[in-house]
Amino acid sequence: MIERRIPIKVMDAVNKVLTFSKQGESEIIPLRESYSRFLAEDLVADHPVPPFDRSPYDGFAIKAESSATARADNPIEYEIIDEIGAGSVSEYTLGEFEAIRIMTGAQIPTGCNAIVMLELTTVYERNGKMYMSIKRPFKSGDNLSLKGEDTRQGEILVKRGTYITPGIVALLATFGYEKVTVVKKPTLGIIATGSELLEVGEELIPGKIRNSNSYMIEAQAIRSGAKPEYIGKLADHLDECYEAIKRSIEKVDYLITTGGVSVGDYDYLPEIYNRLGATILFNKVAMRPGSVTTVAEYNGKLLFGLSGNPSACYVGFELFVRPIIRSYVHSSKPHLQKAVAVLGKDFLKPNPFTRFVRGHLTFTDGKLYATPVGLDKSNVVSSLAEANVFIVLPGGTRGYKEGDLVDILLLEDQTGSDTSWAESFK
Amino acid sequence: MIERRIPIKVMDAVNKVLTFSKQGESEIIPLRESYSRFLAEDLVADHPVPPFDRSPYDGFAIKAESSATARADNPIEYEIIDEIGAGSVSEYTLGEFEAIRIMTGAQIPTGCNAIVMLELTTVYERNGKMYMSIKRPFKSGDNLSLKGEDTRQGEILVKRGTYITPGIVALLATFGYEKVTVVKKPTLGIIATGSELLEVGEELIPGKIRNSNSYMIEAQAIRSGAKPEYIGKLADHLDECYEAIKRSIEKVDYLITTGGVSVGDYDYLPEIYNRLGATILFNKVAMRPGSVTTVAEYNGKLLFGLSGNPSACYVGFELFVRPIIRSYVHSSKPHLQKAVAVLGKDFLKPNPFTRFVRGHLTFTDGKLYATPVGLDKSNVVSSLAEANVFIVLPGGTRGYKEGDLVDILLLEDQTGSDTSWAESFK
Repeated sequence: MIERRIPIKVMDAVNKVLTFSKQGESEIIPLRESYSRFLAEDLVADHPVPPFDRSPYDGFAIKAESSATARADNPIEYEIIDEIGAGSVSEYTLGEFEAIRIMTGAQIPTGCNAIVMLELTTVYERNGKMYMSIKRPFKSGDNLSLKGEDTRQGEILVKRGTYITPGIVALLATFGYEKVTVVKKPTLGIIATGSELLEVGEELIPGKIRNSNSYMIEAQAIRSGAKPEYIGKLADHLDECYEAIKRSIEKVDYLITTGGVSVGDYDYLPEIYNRLGATILFNKVAMRPGSVTTVAEYNGKLLFGLSGNPSACYVGFELFVRPIIRSYVHSSKPHLQKAVAVLGKDFLKPNPFTRFVRGHLTFTDGKLYATPVGLDKSNVVSSLAEANVFIVLPGGTRGYKEGDLVDILLLEDQTGSDTSWAESFK
Repeated sequence: MIERRIPIKVMDAVNKVLTFSKQGESEIIPLRESYSRFLAEDLVADHPVPPFDRSPYDGFAIKAESSATARADNPIEYEIIDEIGAGSVSEYTLGEFEAIRIMTGAQIPTGCNAIVMLELTTVYERNGKMYMSIKRPFKSGDNLSLKGEDTRQGEILVKRGTYITPGIVALLATFGYEKVTVVKKPTLGIIATGSELLEVGEELIPGKIRNSNSYMIEAQAIRSGAKPEYIGKLADHLDECYEAIKRSIEKVDYLITTGGVSVGDYDYLPEIYNRLGATILFNKVAMRPGSVTTVAEYNGKLLFGLSGNPSACYVGFELFVRPIIRSYVHSSKPHLQKAVAVLGKDFLKPNPFTRFVRGHLTFTDGKLYATPVGLDKSNVVSSLAEANVFIVLPGGTRGYKEGDLVDILLLEDQTGSDTSWAESFK
């Protein structure tokens, strides 16, 4: 009657899930829509940068040799024979003591090997001709941006699987990516179960709570790079839940349920996995909160049975669902970024199992400080508002003191980590 | 002919811009769409959490006093008189040596003052009645989640102006926010100027480059919380640029132009500001890159004249446009988050003006390390791909060595900073 489950280590659970990772297909979208998506192809330079020798300043193009004797008391004079706006090319070949007025970014004219900044020149007219003079010498190569000095043609600048930032958008534009090949977002079906759940718009009544998990997961899904599809909220009725889950699996890439995975008499998910003939990867993880997190596989698709408890649900998503989504979008760093931080406040409770404490990360004097937020009961919702890290306290440890070094996982971060975060933990 | 501009300090420039900050109006959107928006109203608890005394575990509700003598060799027996699923309420009042089976999250029945976890009990049947027994005593209050212990009714949980994370979405759902009052996104018009600019889809030809700035700014705008509206790409023709800018200002909250703000002969923005009768806040900032960044005010609206150079354009946006957008969305921390980091690599160039070096931030052993990326010429586009911080090297300083502590500004961060970042710099 009372099922005894064997908890597995967090790291083993994460690795079991990842054995089912797959990479999503790509789709081609306009450059303008590419921000915050994931590249499905390497970003390759289609031309050298700069594409030609060009001027980094407004000024004058000269032959450096002719300036060798220029001094404050011996200005050298140049006749201004042409001017080049950005985007234009001069027809002239520069001779000795000739200068061409040149704008920032314009192509260096033939014969030029140095640029003199405008502010170092004196410009004047004489007999209907324009001249400029300088009072210091220049060397060959001074103030030239040379073709390819930034980037060679054919160079891979950004690897596939990378999150597209504004800087990468600039690169895509520079290299002619009018359309960008990105990874299709995986669809993530979401079903909230529990007879105690009210709609958000409903008045609270005794014994009931509002459904917050499905909205929270939708936001977590978007943050991780997936497309959430809310399927519905179901009461604890076995047949109804079974039918809804069976129907939904076909339509999505991954299916998340919340609630119903514990060993309570109304926890129907174990029976549903059984009826489906799904393979349970694990149904108990040696962690707090979220020990009842269950993951099953059915016809090659993963069913994530997250706890109905909001904090446990949140943790379950970030540890198990996020890396699967990031693998899907070809990321080589699917896990939450890990770091070490100074604990900002005592956390004296012992940790029979690995504990994920919601914390707030701050930076002071070059160091990371992570401070637990809220009371850290697993039913405490309000601490989720301030949390931007999990503080990871390994199982089998006693309490931690302010000032101790602790492992953390960053929640609001697109960088990620390549190795399973758990590997670094004791 | 050659205009001599007086550079102002970065901090003074930022503060001048912020004197024109205004807070945007609010709009009401469905909860489901609220992730990554900014709250226009405080988030207030409409009920205490927990809303009633409830069980944090699956188990049995008992009167603790009756368990006082329970020992391994003296189990105490309870008759199971009812069971309560989550969302249900028991009609019974618990008596001595009576137990009610209770599920996680369910309301504590009358008379109960402790919860016994299921795994600490033995359940059996005798003469058609169900019993459970326990082998250790419980105290009054054991394993109860008490009404309001997390959150009191009426408590402000999140302040207006806060970026809505998945955790805040969960809170909004919990407290009945079916609709959320968020700040309308400001519209940001974007005009790229420069005769050298090609469309992204065009083949490169000598003297020309593709327009990357407007796409980059669109992504920066989205990241900062604004709604970009690309108006177009214009050649360096004074009348055409003037007309386009004049027409566009009315339609957007803020207008950004790129290019044309230098002192080159084809830099028409100064003349356009003049024709409009706009007030120039500054047209030279003591910083690299981006010294030509110009901001003007026209009929209460800000015109941001960013450099046409991609890196300078990027910096200009983050320093001057971002805080205006974040103020608009009611944020009390409009500036980029600042921190101190260990310099990961020598940067030996002297800094006559405050320099914003693109850097990559990593965390090692509890410390922040910021390493310059790319060559840091202001025309280097590729370094933008890796940069997630600016390393700020104050004007008037010599080079910096690996291991020195430096100020940094975080680019991929939603936290922000409340004081003008510049105030902390020497």
